[in-house]
Formats: sequence, C-alpha cells, structure tokens
Amino acid sequence: MRIVILKSHLLQALQTISKAIPTRTAKPILYGVHVAAMTDGLQLTAYDLEIGIQTLIIPAEESDEPTLQIEQEGSIVLHAKYLLDITRKLPHKLVRIDVTDLTTTIRSGSATYTLNGMDPREYPKLPEITEDMSLSLPADVFISLIEQTNFATATTEIRPTLTGVLFSFKEPELRFIASDSHRLSIHSIQAESKHAYEQLEAIIPRKSLLELMKILPTSDVLTDVYIADNQLLVNFGLTKFYSRLIEGQYPDISRIIPTTWRTAIEVDPKQFTESIERAALLARENENQVIRLYLRRTHIEITSHSPDIGKVTETVDPKAFEGEDLQIACNAKFLLDALKALQNEQVRIEFTSPGSAFTLKPSTKDRPLHLILPVRFGPNA
Amino acid sequence: MRIVILKSHLLQALQTISKAIPTRTAKPILYGVHVAAMTDGLQLTAYDLEIGIQTLIIPAEESDEPTLQIEQEGSIVLHAKYLLDITRKLPHKLVRIDVTDLTTTIRSGSATYTLNGMDPREYPKLPEITEDMSLSLPADVFISLIEQTNFATATTEIRPTLTGVLFSFKEPELRFIASDSHRLSIHSIQAESKHAYEQLEAIIPRKSLLELMKILPTSDVLTDVYIADNQLLVNFGLTKFYSRLIEGQYPDISRIIPTTWRTAIEVDPKQFTESIERAALLARENENQVIRLYLRRTHIEITSHSPDIGKVTETVDPKAFEGEDLQIACNAKFLLDALKALQNEQVRIEFTSPGSAFTLKPSTKDRPLHLILPVRFGPNA
Repeated sequence: MRIVILKSHLLQALQTISKAIPTRTAKPILYGVHVAAMTDGLQLTAYDLEIGIQTLIIPAEESDEPTLQIEQEGSIVLHAKYLLDITRKLPHKLVRIDVTDLTTTIRSGSATYTLNGMDPREYPKLPEITEDMSLSLPADVFISLIEQTNFATATTEIRPTLTGVLFSFKEPELRFIASDSHRLSIHSIQAESKHAYEQLEAIIPRKSLLELMKILPTSDVLTDVYIADNQLLVNFGLTKFYSRLIEGQYPDISRIIPTTWRTAIEVDPKQFTESIERAALLARENENQVIRLYLRRTHIEITSHSPDIGKVTETVDPKAFEGEDLQIACNAKFLLDALKALQNEQVRIEFTSPGSAFTLKPSTKDRPLHLILPVRFGPNA
Repeated sequence: MRIVILKSHLLQALQTISKAIPTRTAKPILYGVHVAAMTDGLQLTAYDLEIGIQTLIIPAEESDEPTLQIEQEGSIVLHAKYLLDITRKLPHKLVRIDVTDLTTTIRSGSATYTLNGMDPREYPKLPEITEDMSLSLPADVFISLIEQTNFATATTEIRPTLTGVLFSFKEPELRFIASDSHRLSIHSIQAESKHAYEQLEAIIPRKSLLELMKILPTSDVLTDVYIADNQLLVNFGLTKFYSRLIEGQYPDISRIIPTTWRTAIEVDPKQFTESIERAALLARENENQVIRLYLRRTHIEITSHSPDIGKVTETVDPKAFEGEDLQIACNAKFLLDALKALQNEQVRIEFTSPGSAFTLKPSTKDRPLHLILPVRFGPNA
C-alpha cells in the first residue's frame, strides 16, 4: 500500500472513526483502525463489536492540490490513538504512507514515523446488513430526536431495555422514546416513507446515539437508516455508522402520558431555568435533588431545603396560568434536563395532581414532550 | 451584620479567597469563609491552615451606583463553596446580606437564601507576621519567577525540601530555584532593596505558589513580601496571601550549574518544541519518556522508539551550532517543560558530554536557566 493524502482529510476521517475505538479492551486489535487503500479511495474502519464506523476518503474532484493519491492498493491495521495523535501533529499538509508487510512508514515534512502495523486479516468484519428497505431523514432532524430523548435513558442496567432509546416507526410517524422509569421523553417527526418500512421497532443503546450525534453533520443532508438482524446502520455521505441493538420488549407507554390536566402554566424558559438552578444549588445535597413548586395564580414559588446548609425560595411570574393552585415536589435535575432539551421555546407545563406525572412541552405544539414523576410531597421531602 | 453589595464585587472576592478553601478536611469550619462587615469595608478570609487569603472590599469612591453599604457591622462564617455557587447565579446585580445570630439571609431579585452560618469565633486566626521588613516586586515579575521554576519542583515527598521553590534574596538579587533532582530551574531578578532584608531564604510549597499565581494581578502593581516565623505573607492591593513555609535546608546548588560547554546550539523554540512533541508521542510509553538527540553541524536528529508501537525520526535545522557533534538522551517531558517556560524566545542549549547536565536559556541572556540531567545513552534507552 502506498498513498499520499492531505493531512486535514486524514485527520477528519480519523476523528470520525475514533468514536468506535474502545478505551479499554482485551482484544488489542480493536485499538486499531483498519486502513484500506482501494481504487476508489481510502477506507477507514473502526469496530469495537458494539459500534462500528466506516468512512471513505475520495480524491476531491475540483481542487488545485492533490487531496488523495492511491499509488498502490493494500491494507493495514494501525493503532488508532497513536495514528490520530501523530496525524494531528504532523508538520506538513501532505502525508505519505507506505506499507511493506506490516511495517508502516508515515512521512510528512521533517517527520518520519515507522509504526508496527497489525494484520488486517485479524480485524473483525463489520455486520452485514442485507436489508434493502430504509428510512430517510435529515441529519439535523435525527440529531434533534436524539437530543430530546437520549438524556432520559436509564444509566443503570436493572432494566436493560431502558438503557436505550426506542426507535419506533409506523408510517408516516417516527417516534423516539426514552425513560428511566422516573421520567419519560418522547419526540416524533413525519418521516419520509419512500422506500421505507411500514412498521419498525428497535432499541438503540444510549452510548451509540451519543457517538452518532457527534459525527452526524448539523445540516439537512439525508441519512438512510437500516435496521435488520439486531443491527442498526446509519448511512450519511461517505460514512456508515453501525450499532448493535438492545434485545427485549420495550415497555408499553401508551397509557402513561396524561390526556387531561388541572393546572397548566407557561413560563419563560430562561427565567424559569435559572430559578430552578438557584433552588437546585441546595437540593443537590439530597439524593433525589428535591425541589418544591407552589403554583399560584399570582406567582410560582420554588423552594428547596438542605438541613445542613439552609433553604432557598425563588419567585417566578408565570406567562400564563390556567386551572387550580397546586403544590408539587420533583427532582430538580429532571426538570432542568427537560428545560434544557426544550431550549429557548416558551414552555407549557401541565399538572394533574401532586401525585401524578406532569408534562413539559413547547407552548405551541405537542412534541417534544417530557414527562416527570413527582416525588412524595412531605414535610422533609 | 447587614450589608448591601454589588454582586460582581462579592463574586470576585469570593473567587480570590476560594483558593484557600480545602476540597476535603476533617474540620468542617475550614469549608467556610469568614465574612466580616467593618466600618472600612467587607473583609473575607479563608484559611486552610496551609494557605490563607484575606481580601477587603471597600466602597468604590467614584461610582454612580452603590458598590457596598455597611448598614450594621458584624461577622459570620459561611460555607464558601455554596456561597460562591449561589453568588454566581444570583439574579440581580445587588445582593443584600442580613445576619441574625448565625442565620444568614441573602436576597437578590427573585431569590431568597437562608443559610446556616457557622460561629466566627471558631474560625482559625491567620498567622501574625510582625516583621516590618519587606521586599517589593511587581506582580507580573513575581508571576514570571513562579512560572520559570515551580514546574520543576518534586512531586513526591521523598525529599520534602524539593517539593517547594527556594526563595533566596541576597541584595540586590532575588533568585527562585526549583529541582526534583533530575532537573533544576533557576530565575533571578534585581529586587527593590528599599525597606528590604539584606539576606533571606525560604522554601515555599509548590501548591502555595500555584494558588498565589492564580490571584496575583498580571500587571506591574507592587507586591510586598514578608517572611517571618516560618510564614510567608504577600501583600498586594487589598489582598493578603499567607503560606506556611517548608522547614529544612535546601541543597547547595552552587556547583551544579556547568560553567563550560563543548557543544552549543540555538533553535527556533516553536519548531524545536513541535519536533520534540512529535518524538515524545512514542516516548510516552516508556517510564522516562526517553528521546535521543543527535547533534550534528548539518542538522539535529531527534528519535524515539517504543518496542510496541514503532519509532520516529525528526530533523531540525539549528539556527546556530558551535563546538563538537554530540549524542545525548533525555526525558522529553523535561525538555518540553523547559521550552514551554522559555516561551517564544530563541533558545540556546549548551552541552558538555552525553553524561553531563545540559542547560537551556534564552540566547540573549543567562536567566531564566533550565538544567536537565541526561539519561544513559544505551541501545535500549
């Protein structure tokens, strides 16, 4: 294998695939990136057996300088972390890589590295996904589906299905649902049905979605989603992202979301978030980070109490108030996570009773929706 | 105690004194900041029994808005971390603090905090330093003395005196010296001798200098340095910084610094640093981070070798070369630390033999000077 490549192109591709390099593994070959020089370009693959990322670098068609020259085809596996650190620091914009047997020489300006490569025949194969049905959605929409739900997944393994996000498509709606059993987040969009499945369910691991979100472009470029054989494949541009799926039946959430309310408020998200944050400063001492909300037509009072430190009272004027006065207690972090996900939209919060789940959503639409279970409202809560 | 204060002034003072708040201590009162409202201002004190910081906030003389009003004198000890977090998030630019017995109410805009204060009589007293002799030096010069030396102190407690920087004044020169016994850094300035000691030695703990450096202003405002009773006091503006000193005799370093050389090079600091960094990428695997330098009149070669990963060769053109060709091996991190301290000046490096210490300094002057002991140059070094 013999190639010359623009450092910036190699670096970007290495950064993309590095999300599938494990920090610790018993199989040293998994620390490696599989590098293959082919007639149509340079293909980089990383696969930790959970997440796989493959990206192809092709010569730029209109460019004054050479971006990639494949002088001789071939492949090698190189330690990804070293290759990334080395590439980042190379002195010249062009990089020459020569592989003889497993010995790999990297030259750039004044620097010459000779790395011990690993045998590409020992590198694990990416899952084969033969499905020809796919679902298409813009990358930025995909990111928003992840952002609105992924944070609400369970971080403990008690119920493995809850550690992932339910990807649920039923034409023409695609829903993402996540819950740690104390809160639930749901977002949905109208998905393109061209060449699409009619119905599809899969549970995608939290970590896979976190890594996918980092490499998805923040533009409306279309991503193609394939789900088959307990594997997810997301295809965008010249990059393929693979993830194993979580097996099992996701709990039925159809009856959890309340359809009525007795108290509803609308709040300015920034002002409300800052008030909750101030109350949360004292709530962080107790395990459930409990804050109390006193909802009154005239004003909302937010309080928190830590026996060791003291107490705090915040007053917020609601933008709108409908229904009855109510007192309710909840986990401040859950509230802040939901408000952060909803970003800068005016937020509508609907309550039924001090013991029932309440919901947050944009005041002008029904999705995304975040549901939070309150904590018991007692003298020491 | 009753005061009204500008949030920004309170926040800045809390950030300053927080450097003396311990992260973990068996004495809970040390988590507190001692707050005293006095006729001339608001005094904040933090003292973890190693480092003490006291700062005074006074009403701004020329200001359209009230910066500080002392309505009633008094004092209280408040949990510093909470007070800092709370102050940072307060909604209004003005903060009212009322203390009744130990109960402290903090009001700002929509927020009301009621904190459990601690008894100010239980707060430890800062050391009394009665010395009236002081040494004056500009704050930015003080910072450069610390920056050039503190990194070279020992991080293990095997020889306690080496965990600090030797502060050595002999009119008219002030020297800072640090060594971990594998390298040594020295910087000196002409110190103002007005009202100063004739001769003075003290060993200042590494951590104290790190914290002092963070709060010293980066201007030429004068700092007054007092040393007495095994304590250091640095006075600048309305802030006092206290540190215990390390007891013991600092090793005599007078014969360590070589006075002759057989090979001398001058290098561009940026180019040389980047070449060493690239070589160091493979050196980090071995304990001493060994790189080898092959100094030749035509060019300098830098190599490093890691049995598992591979090897690297770098070529650098020296700006100047005097004397004989030489091969030497050393710890890459020591070299990078010294180059970083010397910043962007052209660097002169003087060598005597492969087994002798070599020195780095600016090419136009003798201080700061960084000395590094080489490692044995063998086939596996």
